[in-house]
Amino acid sequence: MGPERREREEKVLLAHGSGGKAMHSFIREMLAPLMSIEDFNDSAPIPFMEDSGAPAERLVFTTDSYVVSPLFFPGGDIGSLSVNGTINDLSMAGASALCLSLGLIIEEGFPVDSLLRILGSVKEAAEAAGVRIVTGDTKVVERGKGDGLFINTSGVGAVRKGLALSPRNVVPGDAVILSGTIGNHGVAVMAERNGFTFDPPVLSDTAALNGLVDAMLSHTGDIHAMRDPTRGGLATTLKEIAVESGTCIEIDETEIPVSGSVRGACELLGLDPLHVANEGVLVAFVDESVAKSLLERMKEDPLGRDSAVIGRVKERPEGTVVLKTAIGGRRIVDMLHGEQLPRIC
Amino acid sequence: MGPERREREEKVLLAHGSGGKAMHSFIREMLAPLMSIEDFNDSAPIPFMEDSGAPAERLVFTTDSYVVSPLFFPGGDIGSLSVNGTINDLSMAGASALCLSLGLIIEEGFPVDSLLRILGSVKEAAEAAGVRIVTGDTKVVERGKGDGLFINTSGVGAVRKGLALSPRNVVPGDAVILSGTIGNHGVAVMAERNGFTFDPPVLSDTAALNGLVDAMLSHTGDIHAMRDPTRGGLATTLKEIAVESGTCIEIDETEIPVSGSVRGACELLGLDPLHVANEGVLVAFVDESVAKSLLERMKEDPLGRDSAVIGRVKERPEGTVVLKTAIGGRRIVDMLHGEQLPRIC
Repeated sequence: MGPERREREEKVLLAHGSGGKAMHSFIREMLAPLMSIEDFNDSAPIPFMEDSGAPAERLVFTTDSYVVSPLFFPGGDIGSLSVNGTINDLSMAGASALCLSLGLIIEEGFPVDSLLRILGSVKEAAEAAGVRIVTGDTKVVERGKGDGLFINTSGVGAVRKGLALSPRNVVPGDAVILSGTIGNHGVAVMAERNGFTFDPPVLSDTAALNGLVDAMLSHTGDIHAMRDPTRGGLATTLKEIAVESGTCIEIDETEIPVSGSVRGACELLGLDPLHVANEGVLVAFVDESVAKSLLERMKEDPLGRDSAVIGRVKERPEGTVVLKTAIGGRRIVDMLHGEQLPRIC
Repeated sequence: MGPERREREEKVLLAHGSGGKAMHSFIREMLAPLMSIEDFNDSAPIPFMEDSGAPAERLVFTTDSYVVSPLFFPGGDIGSLSVNGTINDLSMAGASALCLSLGLIIEEGFPVDSLLRILGSVKEAAEAAGVRIVTGDTKVVERGKGDGLFINTSGVGAVRKGLALSPRNVVPGDAVILSGTIGNHGVAVMAERNGFTFDPPVLSDTAALNGLVDAMLSHTGDIHAMRDPTRGGLATTLKEIAVESGTCIEIDETEIPVSGSVRGACELLGLDPLHVANEGVLVAFVDESVAKSLLERMKEDPLGRDSAVIGRVKERPEGTVVLKTAIGGRRIVDMLHGEQLPRIC
């Protein structure tokens, strides 16, 4: 095996994105096993008619590009993140993910073994969530014109009949339920980036929430809105919903689950856990009457075992988030400002 | 206005991708006018039920990332390219594009005026094609970790009832129709990249083919397959179809429309027009009996006025493309090898 052949196998080449022979064999060898596709047309059927028997009432569409740095971090990598993140965007609309697309932008010279590891992670995450990747695309840019790998995943989902989750449905009196501890993803990535390790290690919470959401929606029709607090953290998500619903969201600091490791790491890194990105938790706004039973149901799910009612929706001051602090004070919580955590997802 | 404020307005900052306040105002000011969306949820309804009255028989899904360099070239830019390219992928499946997503990966420091020009171009292309952009995402990477702007567009389309275009339907006897002159996009980009100008200038052919395809499908039910010869050019597309259909595609060099400027530019740049990317032409495989009337119909469309029957499908040798040359010889045409034209789309 000559050196040229070896280079071809170990590093991604510009030719892999050029549309010709090298790309064909690259796709066939590396991507095909990931996808439930039989041929390489540029588009793929959306399997909703066959699967559900009857058309869904509403389909939804979402897209996200992932530029997380570093590509590998405790608890996950850009591959699992890009599958779970897009499934979660669909889940937050009350939609079952039907299929995903996968678009790769690879920097020339990127190690093929890293790519294979990431694609393995894509496959594993998609299988774990029961969602198919049906179409894909690969581009390669020259050395220095990218940063290893960027991934775009887009997704199509089917919304349950009659369901219309929206921040606009949030009303005073609603209970605010958080499905798990916050800050894990952002801290895991920042720690990896800065060369810190914690004992016990802080792992990204990256996970597909579609199973948990299915369980929640099957349990009650009284969920008004859901969202996953990713970039910008819980604070930013709550502020968005307060503004969109014209309400005040009052949360209780002592009720918000944060692990000891994350709390310590945030102090070390100068971060507020409320602003740190999450990739496997959701916040739900639900009619107060169902809060208790829904919470119990959520705790039965592995991804919901740390669920907690963290607050209530009030009327005023409209468009604000108020935090009742552990020492009995109150402070206004705002969105993340500036560039605290670039490239966290 | 202080220098900090000016920097914010003229250059994209990392903060624009961080999920916080800067991103919110950035999206609201710059992206919202593009999109037919009322609020900024992470997913958007696919408007197929409302529009068509009845569900389509089949929905299709496609994705493409665009990394073209330079971002602006004669006849288009990355914005129009990314809209037209994805609409065309849907059209080639016989699908009407229902909606698109738009994912931006911006390099820190990218000039805001360039971004606005490109987003204007996105909007114009989407409006010209009558397709809505319903969901989007913005990420920003540090200086030196990207190359100005990469765009992913994904799209959902509805296939006409009973229609199933596929290379597998191509059979010996089929006529091969090309909808326009080849090589324009690739030559326009390569010329811009190398600082060449031609008189008359060679313009990219970037265009949405959905109108032309609608006209073709309304004219006849005897179209077997269609594809747009993008990366890798006409040669690569024909080779793919020959392999997938197990036929021999015989084309006649003298029938393939190539403009004089493109021919001259290809000689100068050392390119074979058969391998140069196109972004606004299609090749259709049709029953011989309808070729003549379909060709006439195609010529009525502005994007099809240079349409020509360029060849026939034969039985053998299977999986090959044979070119009858202008001087009466025959040569085997293969896919593009290697990295002849990186980052052409």
